[in-house]
Amino acid sequence: MTDRKPFILVTNDDGINAPGIAALYKALSQIADIAIVAPDREMSAAGHAITLSDPLRVTEVELEDGITGCAVNGTPADCVKIAARAVLKRPPDLVASGINLGSNTGINVIYSGTVSAATEGIILGIPSVAFSLATYHDPDFGPAAEVAKKVVTKVLENGLPENTLLNVNVPPIQSDEIKGIVVTKQGKAFYDEKFDKRVDPRNRTYYWMSGERKSMKEDEDSDERMVQEGYVSVTPVYYDLTHYEFLNNLRKWPLFNGEKPDLRESS
Amino acid sequence: MTDRKPFILVTNDDGINAPGIAALYKALSQIADIAIVAPDREMSAAGHAITLSDPLRVTEVELEDGITGCAVNGTPADCVKIAARAVLKRPPDLVASGINLGSNTGINVIYSGTVSAATEGIILGIPSVAFSLATYHDPDFGPAAEVAKKVVTKVLENGLPENTLLNVNVPPIQSDEIKGIVVTKQGKAFYDEKFDKRVDPRNRTYYWMSGERKSMKEDEDSDERMVQEGYVSVTPVYYDLTHYEFLNNLRKWPLFNGEKPDLRESS
Repeated sequence: MTDRKPFILVTNDDGINAPGIAALYKALSQIADIAIVAPDREMSAAGHAITLSDPLRVTEVELEDGITGCAVNGTPADCVKIAARAVLKRPPDLVASGINLGSNTGINVIYSGTVSAATEGIILGIPSVAFSLATYHDPDFGPAAEVAKKVVTKVLENGLPENTLLNVNVPPIQSDEIKGIVVTKQGKAFYDEKFDKRVDPRNRTYYWMSGERKSMKEDEDSDERMVQEGYVSVTPVYYDLTHYEFLNNLRKWPLFNGEKPDLRESS
Repeated sequence: MTDRKPFILVTNDDGINAPGIAALYKALSQIADIAIVAPDREMSAAGHAITLSDPLRVTEVELEDGITGCAVNGTPADCVKIAARAVLKRPPDLVASGINLGSNTGINVIYSGTVSAATEGIILGIPSVAFSLATYHDPDFGPAAEVAKKVVTKVLENGLPENTLLNVNVPPIQSDEIKGIVVTKQGKAFYDEKFDKRVDPRNRTYYWMSGERKSMKEDEDSDERMVQEGYVSVTPVYYDLTHYEFLNNLRKWPLFNGEKPDLRESS
């Protein structure tokens, strides 16, 4: 490390007042200068939304223990964009997102505001890591915060390939029960949604979405499975969504051969 | 084809009153039964957001020319979920999303509500296609609607691999000027955002996000480049975000070897 301390942008999707972000701040402030820029309220399942049609406001707020940060009335991706482009005085060396309450494994990753903040980081060319604690009940962010400090230290040392973030999920167990930190792929876990149909006091119908986590048969190197087995999972995530394996098959479809199509011809 | 007409769910992210969805309806109703379930207002750049903390309402509305559909106060992904799980009487054979005003190529795909609706389709196990017209000015949806009819016909015939959607971008030119339909990969195009700092009438600071589309040096088989050259681009999109190429390198980092980490040890 040089004499200049690294500078880390900390954000999340549970909102600036969530305990997970304070835990992340405390762990990372031991190794770096930190700025917090985070949503002013819970933005879970915000996906990679950005705010184009409304003004964004930035308010300095005090978190617990005298920590200060900037609250933004936007999504996690908005927070990273506005931090890098308008709020921070110098570009951060790393974006750390979390610690999220609840895991971000399997297909759920595509709904995750926590991961989308890290994705926005890599789009802006900043190495980024997302951290999630795999429980909703009685969370103890301590072990995950220790993991975060270790992983961030390594990423600052080694760097990451362009356009790649690490999605880290920590099992809800004590530090000395964690079996290890392993590299994984995105698993198959997803939520099976139901819609509760209800009637409001004015007799109008509305729906609440509710989801039940579906366990799938998971490969041995999947994030979901390794977290369940007591490991910290580290999945490298890329924002290229192209399905390369299918690309060449698709080229064999006659319509897609690149020749001038007759669009008038009836189907 | 069997005697039973295919059943297609049509949605978008520009909102149920956008002209692009009516154009898509008209083209696809020549080959299938159609239900429209779409956001009640513009949801551009909604990413893959879903609505967990608010009630969803479904309202039957009349579009142009007597077409009817269901408007939902949610995101494109919400619309597909609620259509499949609560609104439609039978499961659709295909989800068609669009026709979006403006292209969805390059990195912009991850912000796209149009593509996220199709992603939600494949998560629910339904073959899905997203359509976008690569212009914001004086759109003529006619050629793109013809392309949509051709592509959807092919997808209904051939099917798609599990978990794979097609992201189709159409250049803003006349049908007989379209050079061909080609299979592409996600390109590098992105928006370079700036934040306009302004002061409101009550003297409070706010920011507007504005973006300038950045052209990058694009490979010959990238969506962005082929659309610019007058081709329709067809990119197969997968929701597995794992960066497989980097996976094995990452396994060589000592911290990630799966052995019990000493989390107490100071960094």
